[in-house]
Amino acid sequence: MSSTLPRTMTAIRKLHNQPGLWLQEDTPVPGIGPRDVLVAVTHAGICGTDRHIYEWDAWSRSRVVVGITTGHEFVGRVVAVGSAVTRATVGQRVSAEGHIGCGVCQPCRTGNAHICEKVDILGIDTNGCFAEYVAVPEENVWPVNPDIPDHIAAIFDPLGNAMHTVMAAGVSGRSVLITGVGIIGLMAVTISRAAGAGKILVADVSPRRLELAKRLGADVAFDSRDENWSQRARAETHDQGPEVFLEMSGNAKAIRQGFAALRNGGTAALLGLPAEPVALDLPNDIIFKGATVLGINGRKMFETWYQVENFLLSGRLQLDQIVTHRLPLADFERGFKLMQAGEAIKVVLEVSGSRFQVSSCEAAAVAR
Amino acid sequence: MSSTLPRTMTAIRKLHNQPGLWLQEDTPVPGIGPRDVLVAVTHAGICGTDRHIYEWDAWSRSRVVVGITTGHEFVGRVVAVGSAVTRATVGQRVSAEGHIGCGVCQPCRTGNAHICEKVDILGIDTNGCFAEYVAVPEENVWPVNPDIPDHIAAIFDPLGNAMHTVMAAGVSGRSVLITGVGIIGLMAVTISRAAGAGKILVADVSPRRLELAKRLGADVAFDSRDENWSQRARAETHDQGPEVFLEMSGNAKAIRQGFAALRNGGTAALLGLPAEPVALDLPNDIIFKGATVLGINGRKMFETWYQVENFLLSGRLQLDQIVTHRLPLADFERGFKLMQAGEAIKVVLEVSGSRFQVSSCEAAAVAR
Amino acid sequence: MSSTLPRTMTAIRKLHNQPGLWLQEDTPVPGIGPRDVLVAVTHAGICGTDRHIYEWDAWSRSRVVVGITTGHEFVGRVVAVGSAVTRATVGQRVSAEGHIGCGVCQPCRTGNAHICEKVDILGIDTNGCFAEYVAVPEENVWPVNPDIPDHIAAIFDPLGNAMHTVMAAGVSGRSVLITGVGIIGLMAVTISRAAGAGKILVADVSPRRLELAKRLGADVAFDSRDENWSQRARAETHDQGPEVFLEMSGNAKAIRQGFAALRNGGTAALLGLPAEPVALDLPNDIIFKGATVLGINGRKMFETWYQVENFLLSGRLQLDQIVTHRLPLADFERGFKLMQAGEAIKVVLEVSGSRFQVSSCEAAAVAR
Amino acid sequence: MSSTLPRTMTAIRKLHNQPGLWLQEDTPVPGIGPRDVLVAVTHAGICGTDRHIYEWDAWSRSRVVVGITTGHEFVGRVVAVGSAVTRATVGQRVSAEGHIGCGVCQPCRTGNAHICEKVDILGIDTNGCFAEYVAVPEENVWPVNPDIPDHIAAIFDPLGNAMHTVMAAGVSGRSVLITGVGIIGLMAVTISRAAGAGKILVADVSPRRLELAKRLGADVAFDSRDENWSQRARAETHDQGPEVFLEMSGNAKAIRQGFAALRNGGTAALLGLPAEPVALDLPNDIIFKGATVLGINGRKMFETWYQVENFLLSGRLQLDQIVTHRLPLADFERGFKLMQAGEAIKVVLEVSGSRFQVSSCEAAAVAR
Repeated sequence: MSSTLPRTMTAIRKLHNQPGLWLQEDTPVPGIGPRDVLVAVTHAGICGTDRHIYEWDAWSRSRVVVGITTGHEFVGRVVAVGSAVTRATVGQRVSAEGHIGCGVCQPCRTGNAHICEKVDILGIDTNGCFAEYVAVPEENVWPVNPDIPDHIAAIFDPLGNAMHTVMAAGVSGRSVLITGVGIIGLMAVTISRAAGAGKILVADVSPRRLELAKRLGADVAFDSRDENWSQRARAETHDQGPEVFLEMSGNAKAIRQGFAALRNGGTAALLGLPAEPVALDLPNDIIFKGATVLGINGRKMFETWYQVENFLLSGRLQLDQIVTHRLPLADFERGFKLMQAGEAIKVVLEVSGSRFQVSSCEAAAVAR
Repeated sequence: MSSTLPRTMTAIRKLHNQPGLWLQEDTPVPGIGPRDVLVAVTHAGICGTDRHIYEWDAWSRSRVVVGITTGHEFVGRVVAVGSAVTRATVGQRVSAEGHIGCGVCQPCRTGNAHICEKVDILGIDTNGCFAEYVAVPEENVWPVNPDIPDHIAAIFDPLGNAMHTVMAAGVSGRSVLITGVGIIGLMAVTISRAAGAGKILVADVSPRRLELAKRLGADVAFDSRDENWSQRARAETHDQGPEVFLEMSGNAKAIRQGFAALRNGGTAALLGLPAEPVALDLPNDIIFKGATVLGINGRKMFETWYQVENFLLSGRLQLDQIVTHRLPLADFERGFKLMQAGEAIKVVLEVSGSRFQVSSCEAAAVAR
Repeated sequence: MSSTLPRTMTAIRKLHNQPGLWLQEDTPVPGIGPRDVLVAVTHAGICGTDRHIYEWDAWSRSRVVVGITTGHEFVGRVVAVGSAVTRATVGQRVSAEGHIGCGVCQPCRTGNAHICEKVDILGIDTNGCFAEYVAVPEENVWPVNPDIPDHIAAIFDPLGNAMHTVMAAGVSGRSVLITGVGIIGLMAVTISRAAGAGKILVADVSPRRLELAKRLGADVAFDSRDENWSQRARAETHDQGPEVFLEMSGNAKAIRQGFAALRNGGTAALLGLPAEPVALDLPNDIIFKGATVLGINGRKMFETWYQVENFLLSGRLQLDQIVTHRLPLADFERGFKLMQAGEAIKVVLEVSGSRFQVSSCEAAAVAR
Repeated sequence: MSSTLPRTMTAIRKLHNQPGLWLQEDTPVPGIGPRDVLVAVTHAGICGTDRHIYEWDAWSRSRVVVGITTGHEFVGRVVAVGSAVTRATVGQRVSAEGHIGCGVCQPCRTGNAHICEKVDILGIDTNGCFAEYVAVPEENVWPVNPDIPDHIAAIFDPLGNAMHTVMAAGVSGRSVLITGVGIIGLMAVTISRAAGAGKILVADVSPRRLELAKRLGADVAFDSRDENWSQRARAETHDQGPEVFLEMSGNAKAIRQGFAALRNGGTAALLGLPAEPVALDLPNDIIFKGATVLGINGRKMFETWYQVENFLLSGRLQLDQIVTHRLPLADFERGFKLMQAGEAIKVVLEVSGSRFQVSSCEAAAVAR
């Protein structure tokens, strides 16, 4: 193994305190601790979060350490395992959960590590997967079913966000409103349809995304710049409003209009992140409605992952129209530009490498 | 109205204490109390329960009073309303819930009238819908969406049984085993598929029904006469067993095999009615598994009905292959014979009548 | 009956479009429809809502029609029943749910009439119970267990608000924060303690109420004028924050501090009504926390009522310190003054009357 | 450390394939792997399972390997940690969950390790805690709050069984029937009372245990040899039956009578393990009732443990009457005899040892 696992690799890194990301060819291959595994990445998805880091917005500047390798959505093969690893094996094709829990807090110890207060996130707090190799804790590894293709396995992370939101809210036999049909909103449309939703309503500012949402199963699309779409949403649902409201825009106005539309007794699941505080009319939006509002963060570890696998294998999800571009890792800038131009929905980067040859024992030896 | 609402009607009745049912042309049109409505039936479904009454088995002889008009699945139009009725109107196209709760017990007062201990059932305890007219309490009436065709509206009752079972268990993103694919089991297949189930397994003794189950969305079909199907069901589900078990056969052996297959932490929903006590290995079937077992009775009033409407309007349910025959009311015997021969799945009777002309005030006057 | 049921009665009414309430001795005894019952009131509680109407604040002026009889918390005896009433009987000792649902909307038909969009509220939208007689729909009547004394039966309504909030959130084995310990907040303290809460924290501006909260079972009391109480609440709960947050103040600052304190994965139940929109930091308050937020309105009909009865009969609730004053109906103004002065918590009015003699049939006859 | 941690210890072991247990003074101190910790036991509880092993019944003979150290309920101090341990520290006072999950199956990965199919149980499948030292995986360790005394910390395991059962069923504001008031049944009585149960009914064959149950909070006690206790249980609960049924006897007749008593819509939680299959009348016991039946195994890891801690710290549980005897480890036989004679409820063994002196680094070194 020492002959086959290189000491350096290509990685996309935040090298400077300014907008942009940089490809660096001589990045050290990450070391692994006794409970970690090293994965040779084959495909990685570009997330909206990566775009924030690329554009170096206020949030990124306050959170991300300069020097980090970015990226957190990927699939690849295990090439080395730490000395105390018992549950992963070299050669496994895996994705991984990007939320790394502390393991000792109440959420971590009760199956809710996705809301650990001290969570580290791959590609934000630790070196990520826009690279030939990435190290992750054994507990975060997810073996990928062989019937699931690479470009889909690479986006389990955002698909899991959408799945968690839809499943937490519960859409079967209920009408659904989705505000914001970007990547995750569109995924939520196809998942909701597959999960037995009744009428699906969507609202967004982009006619193009609304059109795609309809192709994926939305029944009614509203231009959210229309002041009255909230009333129209009620009119479309027996004048009582949708029973479920999935918020994926992070836009304050959309949030308020979504709550205004929501049926009494309905469920709102909030995933989108507003940049500023949002003034809510609590009595009318939530209290008198007897509404249930769910904050959605990450993916349930690993209940959501099992759901994603089961939905994918049932063949009901339409994801091919969502993965609009597949580019070589070195072309990452084109990916970001396509996203900025609104031409791409989800971009998957392909890591050509495949330079690795693995054997279990040596891998462990080298991995130190 | 007094000129148009007849005093007598055609009805299918249990006239004698012996097998069979009899068409009687001069049955009195039912009277209605202050809170009842009178419905002119246009379509009615034959249920397995009706077949028990037709065949006059032990259960029927112990429960059903000779003289009753049978039938409890139907759609029709309101032709008269009682003096204290406020929520139904003459002319409405309606179906009705056949479980008539007492209104005062805890289940009735907490949204669970479907499990009222003193429930009366239409066509079993009170005169039913195999007739030109049927009287039902206002609270049991369900207005039918105009986009739902009559032959489907007529079978909301069994469809509601299947819906209640599937929704109570929760199938989205989970593998499902259904034992017994008669009418309701087949409905459960198409509902489970529409509700986002992962792999769907079915077991039955009838190759013909198994074949239909596969056409409706089942992934794997087991001949339940095969001693090993339970192990094979586990093999088909990651060697851990299906996450959900919907029991619709009432067969003791199927029940035990279903529990043997069920995954740890899984959910079993029991709808089928075994004729004899069933010996269960409680530690291995339920306790060590940490299983949840749900007794399913009727339909949730009226949550299930809303779910049925939403699923139907979403266009995802395949029911046309389940309603195999539509016959005139007078041909009811042929319907029962077809069911006995295994040639029919669901038979819908069409009530040709349409002799009624309605007007609200007179209807109320006459209805006394 | 016609000889015993008077035509007029004493009632406390909103006779003029200005602050105040007026006792009127010749108010007509309310008529009842076919599904209503007439109750001779013996005890009635003064609610904070009644005080709003007394003080004639902006909300009251916009909602309440001048001329109405106020009051919605009471206990009494049925003295007459409508012609179509089947579930209540003359002579029964009853309280009643003050939310009168439409009966046809989805919430009403699914056991959630407490969130009916078209709800009428006794004493706000219809004539209430600060009177010798009150008419209520049969469906709203609650027979009171004989072991429950009158002054407690009279306050089932606010006790039900507190019970609904506590039970919806789920406090058993969890730490609880209650912001606002007025009448309902104090009830929530004793209910939470009886329901198995872990550490109970309370925050309020009134030292006197905080002291009473501690006597009823609160472990830690915070003066909510202290800017740092939210951090101290976290320090008191393993530095992770309380698992449950019951909001009963309606104060924007308390709401924000409560959310700041709430543990990741925790549950917030909102009952207090802020007068203005509240700006929430949705990512940090709800989304990243994976919090569940429940809007609480009224009482579940009638699940909450059964819970109240069971808790009361178990003898674990401490309510006597909450009902601080019992006054004759004619002394109602003193009751309001005591509340305004902060000297009373809950005031129960006693209706001396008892002029009624009842018999079922005549009652029905007269009741038209 | 090598100077202070001995190589051998005293342990209670199943040395021979016959009834009995044997104290062995020169048992090797267990080694620990990289993820394990070594605990110096100070107190250990005798479980009914230990008694089965002591008596060497059919179940024990089929499951337990001769040579094993028994016992799985304990408290002690960490004296050594494995090289990859990050979450436990030498010196911590800890108890531990006795169910050791595989870590890779769906239950283990979704917060349900208590129902792992490949679970190992301490003292049954691996060497247990009736010894001076016990080795457990780091993930199973539970740090004990300093306010909880040793003899209670030693019985977190059975207390967790009772807690899991009570909390899964949900007793707040509901009437509860408990069949079988041995150790865990008695714990369930005091927990149910503390958790806000309405009327608590208990059934057992032992007048002495029934008497203790009443002292701990049961309202009504039935001698389960009385054929009619099931009907009487219904009479005590508004003729509708208890809303919750906690089965802790494992007795087939009690199970059937409990189901017969259960209210429609009620919840049954099954913990007791019948030795033989139990014939259930599924339609009347479960299906028509719309009952929910929960199989209860172990404790939720670690939700139940947090609940136990919160309930204990609230001071509401009465456990002192349940821990009837505290004996030195060497007197274990007397403990078993007292249990067999029905004189003891829960016996806690005290391990006098305290021979250990610890230091973190050396401990890790020696622990290999």
